[in-house]
Amino acid sequence: MDDGADMMNVKVGIVGSTGYLGSELLRHLLRHPHATVEKLASATSAGKSAKERFPQFHGALDGHTFVPMTAEGLADVDVVFLATPSGVARELAPSLLDAGPRVVDLSGDHRLSRGAAKIHYGADPVAQGAVYGLPELNAERIRGAQLVANPGCYPTASALALLPLARAGLIEEPVIVTAMSGVTGAGKEPSEELHFPEMNESARAYKVGTHRHEPEIAETLSFAAGSGLRVSFTPHIIPMNRGILATAHAKPRGPGLEVGELVAFYEKAYAAEPFVRVVEHEPDTKLVRNSNMCHVKPHGVNAAGYYVVTSAIDNLVKGGSGQAVENMNIMFGLPRDAGLVSYGGA
Amino acid sequence: MDDGADMMNVKVGIVGSTGYLGSELLRHLLRHPHATVEKLASATSAGKSAKERFPQFHGALDGHTFVPMTAEGLADVDVVFLATPSGVARELAPSLLDAGPRVVDLSGDHRLSRGAAKIHYGADPVAQGAVYGLPELNAERIRGAQLVANPGCYPTASALALLPLARAGLIEEPVIVTAMSGVTGAGKEPSEELHFPEMNESARAYKVGTHRHEPEIAETLSFAAGSGLRVSFTPHIIPMNRGILATAHAKPRGPGLEVGELVAFYEKAYAAEPFVRVVEHEPDTKLVRNSNMCHVKPHGVNAAGYYVVTSAIDNLVKGGSGQAVENMNIMFGLPRDAGLVSYGGA
Amino acid sequence: MDDGADMMNVKVGIVGSTGYLGSELLRHLLRHPHATVEKLASATSAGKSAKERFPQFHGALDGHTFVPMTAEGLADVDVVFLATPSGVARELAPSLLDAGPRVVDLSGDHRLSRGAAKIHYGADPVAQGAVYGLPELNAERIRGAQLVANPGCYPTASALALLPLARAGLIEEPVIVTAMSGVTGAGKEPSEELHFPEMNESARAYKVGTHRHEPEIAETLSFAAGSGLRVSFTPHIIPMNRGILATAHAKPRGPGLEVGELVAFYEKAYAAEPFVRVVEHEPDTKLVRNSNMCHVKPHGVNAAGYYVVTSAIDNLVKGGSGQAVENMNIMFGLPRDAGLVSYGGA
Amino acid sequence: MDDGADMMNVKVGIVGSTGYLGSELLRHLLRHPHATVEKLASATSAGKSAKERFPQFHGALDGHTFVPMTAEGLADVDVVFLATPSGVARELAPSLLDAGPRVVDLSGDHRLSRGAAKIHYGADPVAQGAVYGLPELNAERIRGAQLVANPGCYPTASALALLPLARAGLIEEPVIVTAMSGVTGAGKEPSEELHFPEMNESARAYKVGTHRHEPEIAETLSFAAGSGLRVSFTPHIIPMNRGILATAHAKPRGPGLEVGELVAFYEKAYAAEPFVRVVEHEPDTKLVRNSNMCHVKPHGVNAAGYYVVTSAIDNLVKGGSGQAVENMNIMFGLPRDAGLVSYGGA
Repeated sequence: MDDGADMMNVKVGIVGSTGYLGSELLRHLLRHPHATVEKLASATSAGKSAKERFPQFHGALDGHTFVPMTAEGLADVDVVFLATPSGVARELAPSLLDAGPRVVDLSGDHRLSRGAAKIHYGADPVAQGAVYGLPELNAERIRGAQLVANPGCYPTASALALLPLARAGLIEEPVIVTAMSGVTGAGKEPSEELHFPEMNESARAYKVGTHRHEPEIAETLSFAAGSGLRVSFTPHIIPMNRGILATAHAKPRGPGLEVGELVAFYEKAYAAEPFVRVVEHEPDTKLVRNSNMCHVKPHGVNAAGYYVVTSAIDNLVKGGSGQAVENMNIMFGLPRDAGLVSYGGA
Repeated sequence: MDDGADMMNVKVGIVGSTGYLGSELLRHLLRHPHATVEKLASATSAGKSAKERFPQFHGALDGHTFVPMTAEGLADVDVVFLATPSGVARELAPSLLDAGPRVVDLSGDHRLSRGAAKIHYGADPVAQGAVYGLPELNAERIRGAQLVANPGCYPTASALALLPLARAGLIEEPVIVTAMSGVTGAGKEPSEELHFPEMNESARAYKVGTHRHEPEIAETLSFAAGSGLRVSFTPHIIPMNRGILATAHAKPRGPGLEVGELVAFYEKAYAAEPFVRVVEHEPDTKLVRNSNMCHVKPHGVNAAGYYVVTSAIDNLVKGGSGQAVENMNIMFGLPRDAGLVSYGGA
Repeated sequence: MDDGADMMNVKVGIVGSTGYLGSELLRHLLRHPHATVEKLASATSAGKSAKERFPQFHGALDGHTFVPMTAEGLADVDVVFLATPSGVARELAPSLLDAGPRVVDLSGDHRLSRGAAKIHYGADPVAQGAVYGLPELNAERIRGAQLVANPGCYPTASALALLPLARAGLIEEPVIVTAMSGVTGAGKEPSEELHFPEMNESARAYKVGTHRHEPEIAETLSFAAGSGLRVSFTPHIIPMNRGILATAHAKPRGPGLEVGELVAFYEKAYAAEPFVRVVEHEPDTKLVRNSNMCHVKPHGVNAAGYYVVTSAIDNLVKGGSGQAVENMNIMFGLPRDAGLVSYGGA
Repeated sequence: MDDGADMMNVKVGIVGSTGYLGSELLRHLLRHPHATVEKLASATSAGKSAKERFPQFHGALDGHTFVPMTAEGLADVDVVFLATPSGVARELAPSLLDAGPRVVDLSGDHRLSRGAAKIHYGADPVAQGAVYGLPELNAERIRGAQLVANPGCYPTASALALLPLARAGLIEEPVIVTAMSGVTGAGKEPSEELHFPEMNESARAYKVGTHRHEPEIAETLSFAAGSGLRVSFTPHIIPMNRGILATAHAKPRGPGLEVGELVAFYEKAYAAEPFVRVVEHEPDTKLVRNSNMCHVKPHGVNAAGYYVVTSAIDNLVKGGSGQAVENMNIMFGLPRDAGLVSYGGA
C-alpha cells in the first residue's frame, strides 16, 4: 500500500466508455486513488449527459457530459484510454499523441506487427510508437511508452500460460491453445446468438483458425522465444459473464522438465510479478473473477508427450481494463496495483 | 417411423435409476413404444416406493417399488441397464448374464482393454464378453452382444469427431482433444465444488492427464485406425447442465485434405448414420440438447498444420442414456431411433 | 396411449414458426402421431427454404419452403396456429376462418373481453367467435370452437393456481399474484436488456401495474367466480430459459379451509385433469421443464390471513405451444395428450 | 473520501469466516483503510493455516492461523463479527462483550423481540443489549451499541422498500412481500437441492409462511410505524449467485399518494442516506451486484388499490457483510462508506 502523499493525480480521458471494457475502466478509475476521470468522449453521444448510461455507478458520473471524439476535446488530459471498435484507434491515436496525452489502446489496432506472420514484436511496434502492454513481458518499455497496445484477452491468458517456457527456449512446435471465454468478451452489442436463451446452455467454438488473437499469441510467444512459433488457437464461448480459461499444449524441447522442476521454474519466473500466481488448484475463472489476477498451473509432460498449462483471468480485468490501468500505473510511476482489485471470487 | 405391429416388447430392468444417467434412461424408456420398465433395482432403497424419487415423471412410477440389486430379482427381464458406480457392474454383470438378461453397462467397467495402453478393443472385450457400444463403430457386433459396454460421454464426442479420419488412416500423432462438459456429467452427488454458487461463473480443467476417458478415446481411435494413436485429452467443466463440446486436433498423414474434400469425406462416412450430422454451423451444445444427435464439423488444415474437428452431444443422451437405448434397440432388432428424441434445442 | 388406428391425421399450418412459441409448436407437432405440419407461413421469408432456420430439427424441415402469410396459402389445412405479434391475428383470423381452417391464436389478440375490465369471458368471446383455450376451464366449448384464444403464459399459471377456489366462491379480494418467468417468455428479438451478460445475475420486475396479462388473469378468475375479482399482478424476469413460477395470494371468503381440507379440495378439483398435479413439494420450474404439466400447491391461511398458492409451468409448453396442441387435440377429438410430453425435468 | 490521517485502526476478529458471509466480510475488511483483520476464529479448524481456504484472496491470509472460538482468544480485538450458525452467537456474545470487544452478530440470534408477534423492537433488544443494525432506521443507536444485530437479507430489502411509508403512517394491512434470492443466500453447505444441475433452470418458493424473516420484517415495519403490521412474506430461490429482489404490496391508509408525490416523498426520506437510491429504472439485482447499495422504486396505487414498491440489494453486501461493515464504521466513528464498494454491476 502506498501513502500517496507525493503522488501525482493522473487526469484521464476515455473514448468508448459505454461498452463492457469502457465501463469496466470506469469501475477501476472511479475509485483509483491517483487518477481522476476528466473526460468521457463518444462518437454518437457528444453533448448528452452520462447520467442515464451508468446506473450502476450511482450518480458518480451525474455531472459528466460526453465530449466529441476528437483530439482537441481530449488535449488537456494526461492519458486517453481507447476502448473503441477496430480501426478507430488507428485513426485517432496519432492526433491524440500530437495533442499531448499518452494513449492506452484497448482495441487490437496497434497489437500486431506490420509484417507477415512470425515477425516478432519489438521492431514494428517501436516504429509505430506502440509498445505491447503485457507488463510481465515489457514493463520497462511500457514505462516510457507514449502509446501502449493493451493486449487482447485471449493473448493475455495464453501468453502468461507459456511465457516462462517460451522465454527460456524450453518449448517447440506444436503449440496448441484452446480457450473458453465468458460472453462479455463478445461485446455489448445484442445479437441473436448472444441473446440470453440462445447462449444459456450453449458452448461452441467460433472463428476456428481465423481469430485475430491467433497471430497475436504467436507473435508474443515468438518474441519471447526469440524464434518463430506457430500457434493453433481455438476460442470458445460459454454461458457465463466473465472469465477466460486457457488450456495450452506445447512440445518440450528435449526431454522436458519433471513436474516438480516445472512448477519451481514457473514460481521463480513469476516470483516478482504482482498479478500472476502459480497455483496448486486448477485455475478457475471464479477465483479470479473481478480481480486483476492471473492464475497459472503448469502440468508435467503427459502420456502423449506434451506440457499442458492452464491459466485463468477475468477477461474484462487482467484481460482488458484492469491491465490497461496497470499499464497506466507503470507509465506514470504509480504503484503497480493502484486502483486495482486483487481479490477475486465475487 | 415404425408401425410396431409385430414388434416385441422388451422388458427392462434398471440398476441405479436415481442418478442422472438412470433417470435419463427412465425418461426415454417410459415413452419407448416397444419397451416396458419392469424393475428398478437399488442397493440402498430396496423395498421402498419409487414414487417420491421421481416427481418429474408425474406419477408414472407410482406403482414401482425398488427391488434388491441381485441377479435373482432381475432374472425375468430381457435387458438390464447398469447405471452404477465404478466396480459394481464388474461384480454384477456375470451373474446377470447367467440368469438370463442381456446387459448394457453404462459405467466404465467394461470399456477398456485388459492390457496396457494402446491395445485395441476387439480382442479383450470379446474375451470379457463385452462389445464397445459405439453404434457408428460396432453396430454389427452390438446386435449379437450379450454385454454391451456403453461408451463414456467424452469418448463418444471425441471418437465421433475423428472416427472417419482415423478409420481411413488419414491422421497421425499428435492427437489432442480438449472438451468441456455440463455439470450433470459430474453426477448427482452434492459437493462444494458443484454447489451452485461455486460452479456458476466457473470454468476449469480437471483430472488433467489422468482422466480415465483418455485411454478410452485412445483405444477407440487406435482400434479404428488399426494402429496405436496416443491421445492427449483434457476435460473441463463449465456452468451449464447438459452438453459436451469437443475440440479435436490431429495431424494429417501426408498433405491433408482440402476443407471441401474433408467435408465431403465426412458426409459420406456418416451418410447412413441416423445420429450423426455433419453441420455447416459450429456444433453447439444447445442445438443437440435433449436429443440423441451428434453434430460434427471438420475444419481444414490450419496455419499450424492441424485438422481441427469440433463436435457436440448431450452428455446424458448420445453421451449416455440415449446411446444405451440405441444399443438396446440394435440388440433387440427394434428401429434404431425407437423411444429416442432426435430434435434438440429445448 | 392410443392405438391410433382410426384416427384422422390433422393437417397443420403455422404462421410465425421462427419465434420461440413457433419453434416449440414444431417440436411437438413434428412428433405428433396424428398431425402433420403442412405449411409454414411467414410475412418476411415467403419463398425461402426453412432448412437453415431450424438446425435443431436435424433436417426434418429440409423440404419446407415458407409460404406467404395469406388465407389462400393456408386454405387447405385443417387448423392454423398463429404465433404472431400483437395485431396480426386480429387481421388474419377472419379470412382464415372463411377459407376453411380452424384457428388457434397463440397471441393475445382474442383473449380479452371487448368491454371494460371485470367483464367476464363468455359473452364477448362468443361474439368474436373465440373461446378462451384453458382446457381446465373450457374444455367443452373448445371442442366445438372454430377460433381458440390460447391463454397467455402468466394467466395459465395464475389461473390454475386459484381456479378451484375462484370457481367455488371461496375467495374474495385482494387477489395478489407475483410471478417470475424465464427469458424465452420475452421473445426471441435481441435487445440490450436480454443480452446474455445483462440478463445473467439479473432479477427484476417489469411492466408493474401495466402488463396486459393482469386483465386476462382478472377476467379468467372473475368468469370462474361468477363475480368481479380485481387482481394485482406483477411479473418478473429471471436468469433462466424456461418456466413460470406464480405465487398467488387471495383472501378467504369466510374463515378459510384448513390446509388438509384445502389440499383435498384441490385434489378433487383437478382429479380428472391430465395436466395439473397437486403436489406435496414446492412447485419448481425445473420439474415441469419441457413438459405440458402444471404443478400446484395450495398453502393454508397464513399468519396475515391469506391463502398462498404456488404453481409452476413451462412457459413455452403449458404456457404456450403445448397448450395450443392440447387445444388442437380437443378440437379434433384426439387423445388430450397426443404429441405432448408429460415428463419434465430435462 | 476521507484523508484518514487521524483515524483509528479498528482491530477485527471474525468468527465463521469460511461461509459466504464470512468470506464476503474478509473481502471488504482486507481492503478497509481503517481496519485490520487480526483474528479468524473457527470451531473446527483452530490451529490450522487459513491459506488453503481462501485461494481467491491470493495470499493475503497466508500468515493467518485459525484461533479457537472462545472469548479469550478474541479478547484483544476491538470488534468481533459473528457469521455463525443459529444459536452460536447467543452463546458466545455475552462472554465476548465481557471480555472487551464490541460485537456485530450477522446471524439471526439477536434480531427478534423476545415477546410474541407484533411486539416492536426497542424494548427487548435493549434488554438484550442488542441494537437492530439497520442504519437507515437506527443509526444513532448503532453508534453507541455494544452489540449490533445485523439485519437479515430479506428484511433489509423488504424494510427499505416500505420504511418511508411505514414511518409516516401511510400504509395499513395487508402488507404482502414476495422476494427472490440468489443461491448464496442459502449458504455454502452442499445439498442436492442446491447442486448446480438441480438449481439451474429452477425457480421455487420455500418456507412458505414459516420463514423466520417474516416476523423480522413485521417487527421492523411495526416499530417504524408505531403500531402492529402483520406481514405475509414468501421467499423464493432462483438460479443466480447474488441478489435479492423484493416486491412489496401495501394498502394505502386513505386515498394514497399519487405516483409523483410518492416518488418525491421517497426521495426526501432517503436524501441523506448514502446506500439507498430511489431509481427510475426497475430495481435490478445486476445493477447493485457487489455493491452495498439498495435501489428502491415506489409505484403509485395500482388498479387493485395497492402500492407496489420494488427493491434490490446484493444479499451478501447490503443484505449481510457490507451492512455489517457499515455498522462497524458507525460504531467506531469512521466514514460510513469506508471499505465499502458502492459501484455495482460486476
